[in-house]
Amino acid sequence: MWDMCLHHSWLYAKVFLRERAILWFRMNSDIEFMQEALEEARAAAMAGEVPIGAVLVHGGSVVARSGNRTIRDCDPTAHAEIVVLREAARALGNYRLAGTTLYVTIEPCSMCAGAMIQARIERLVYGADDPKGGAVRTCFQLLSDERLNHRVEVTSGVLAEDCAAAIQSFFAGRR
Amino acid sequence: MWDMCLHHSWLYAKVFLRERAILWFRMNSDIEFMQEALEEARAAAMAGEVPIGAVLVHGGSVVARSGNRTIRDCDPTAHAEIVVLREAARALGNYRLAGTTLYVTIEPCSMCAGAMIQARIERLVYGADDPKGGAVRTCFQLLSDERLNHRVEVTSGVLAEDCAAAIQSFFAGRR
Repeated sequence: MWDMCLHHSWLYAKVFLRERAILWFRMNSDIEFMQEALEEARAAAMAGEVPIGAVLVHGGSVVARSGNRTIRDCDPTAHAEIVVLREAARALGNYRLAGTTLYVTIEPCSMCAGAMIQARIERLVYGADDPKGGAVRTCFQLLSDERLNHRVEVTSGVLAEDCAAAIQSFFAGRR
Repeated sequence: MWDMCLHHSWLYAKVFLRERAILWFRMNSDIEFMQEALEEARAAAMAGEVPIGAVLVHGGSVVARSGNRTIRDCDPTAHAEIVVLREAARALGNYRLAGTTLYVTIEPCSMCAGAMIQARIERLVYGADDPKGGAVRTCFQLLSDERLNHRVEVTSGVLAEDCAAAIQSFFAGRR
């Protein structure tokens, strides 16, 4: 009887520790990839663009990375997320990006959230909320809408202060 | 006294006729440009793409035209509307497309409606509603949302039956 109890406790502990380890690993890699997205945001600021950066990860590796390129490319759709989705599709040879995670410094707008649904990305990790047009949580909740044919798992608030600071100092410097 | 009355009546009649003439002209050019968008939709079907077409008009002339290119370009963002907005920005040398009208055969999705806000287009004319993800009227109303920093004038239902038929016959042929 005590043997069985000990055996079960040991099994539960093993499952618990395994889940904790997975969460710890995921949290660490989220921070690591968000730092790479932040580097892209800072590089965009240096080029006179709104400092938002994104990286797309597949199988633990970065497949595509970019900052906003709207002004440089004279392209109204060239937000960091869109550039990264297009580049990743080319790199992976598939316009569906199943099993990928997109890291972006600021909550995506409706264009970018819509593009993530089109691309069927699995997971989105973003830094700071965007009260002026965020389409994931703040103004709209496009990625969890049951009427659409794809849903995206979302983690928000990763390095949120650094991500918001990048954009705030950019606009403060322009005033 | 009667002279004044006659004069006022004549003025009102002139304004009324002018407005009617403008409406008539606008309706006719809407149909004409939607026919061009429909040609793009049919060409897309011939290339194995979902048959949706778009043209962008500035100062009465077509600046850019395209059908869906998602599969051909291996690009999840290459809906007809996005391709046309990108091409028009290049052609006009400006990533803001103020004063332009976008014609598209089917109600835009959230990605494309969001892109129209980013591009600051003035007016959208579309054919048939999209009950599965239309982001202008059916599922979401992005183009009239007061929280966003731009609104787009919308006319819907232009050649709606032809536009819906193009897509229905394409999917019927694939079953």
